Amino acid sequence: MAGDFTLLTAVSLLSAFQQCYFAWLVGKSRKKHKVMPPAVTGAPEFDRTFRAQQNCVEFYPVFLTVLWTAGYLFNQEIASTLGLLYVFARYKYFHGYVQAVKGRLTGFYLSLVILFCLTTLGAAGIVNSFLDEYLDFSIMKKLRKSF
Amino acid sequence: MAGDFTLLTAVSLLSAFQQCYFAWLVGKSRKKHKVMPPAVTGAPEFDRTFRAQQNCVEFYPVFLTVLWTAGYLFNQEIASTLGLLYVFARYKYFHGYVQAVKGRLTGFYLSLVILFCLTTLGAAGIVNSFLDEYLDFSIMKKLRKSF
Amino acid sequence: MAGDFTLLTAVSLLSAFQQCYFAWLVGKSRKKHKVMPPAVTGAPEFDRTFRAQQNCVEFYPVFLTVLWTAGYLFNQEIASTLGLLYVFARYKYFHGYVQAVKGRLTGFYLSLVILFCLTTLGAAGIVNSFLDEYLDFSIMKKLRKSF
Repeated sequence: MAGDFTLLTAVSLLSAFQQCYFAWLVGKSRKKHKVMPPAVTGAPEFDRTFRAQQNCVEFYPVFLTVLWTAGYLFNQEIASTLGLLYVFARYKYFHGYVQAVKGRLTGFYLSLVILFCLTTLGAAGIVNSFLDEYLDFSIMKKLRKSF
Repeated sequence: MAGDFTLLTAVSLLSAFQQCYFAWLVGKSRKKHKVMPPAVTGAPEFDRTFRAQQNCVEFYPVFLTVLWTAGYLFNQEIASTLGLLYVFARYKYFHGYVQAVKGRLTGFYLSLVILFCLTTLGAAGIVNSFLDEYLDFSIMKKLRKSF
Repeated sequence: MAGDFTLLTAVSLLSAFQQCYFAWLVGKSRKKHKVMPPAVTGAPEFDRTFRAQQNCVEFYPVFLTVLWTAGYLFNQEIASTLGLLYVFARYKYFHGYVQAVKGRLTGFYLSLVILFCLTTLGAAGIVNSFLDEYLDFSIMKKLRKSF
């Protein structure tokens, strides 16, 4: 059983690592711009770096929730692929934001599109699961039978 | 098996959606009050909106943890109902806070009461689970037998 | 099945409780230093208390992810012990930070070492799980057989 969700677990671990990496970049930026804790404002570049990380922090539990919902109730492979794309979108977002305020937009919109897809897949999985449980009617089983 | 935790998953997805909705309201407030990123202070109404969202972010992983602990080890239906109530409490909290600093209190205290209930149910589930595993003594099985 | 991950669940619930406790200490510090919401700066001690809690918030979903990955795919007992240590490290960090900026370092470095260990164990579990699934080769089964 332990291997059932290996792909989702791998993507989750990778994204957790990325969160640590962003926190480390904030620490590096602190040193570069001499912004000592507990201050969280200073040079404009530091402010952007800090906000970029904070935004990633805000969305991280949301990402994990929709990733696992979509992977658990819909399809693990599709959800994991979207999860990898999200990690890439956050990479684009973070580094774009550090360079300029406008640089954050591409990565941010991409990350929103991915969250939207994962939420939709998760919702589809939930609806299917309810139909299956209470009406004994499963769309996904029927789809699988058809192919 | 995939349908076992459908209720908990549905509540989790709903709460994740709410988190995105709050983040979107902060973005809207940014535009209304012309607070451009990476700034996080400006008009008083924006400050309140931002802090309301930040507080929801802070408590979100805590909520998910106690929701799933209570639902997994105690009772899924009760935990999911409390989870729905939490989403409502956060709705009250957020919109109350946006209007006035004092407006946050009703929703906030309600959310704390719900977190307390979920933690208590989760702790009861853990104790029962330990008793069951190590002493082969399960209160919940006995309760179920009695009814 | 419900009892399978009782240890991990217990550590998660304890850490969720700790997060609430830190949030409560920030509220207490608000009153002590008369920093009314939505303000998040004021007296230096309040600033340190607030940043200490924020840092704990930032790392909390990362902690949960690596804790469960290590516990689910490697070994629950080892992961739970490291999880308990992490709660202790965050306790040291928080109270050290409240007293002085330098006081945060011991707890912080300890928490990083623990996150690193959990990530390594989780990654080992994932590699083993992939080998097992796709090459039918499990290092952990072989290890268990040898002892």
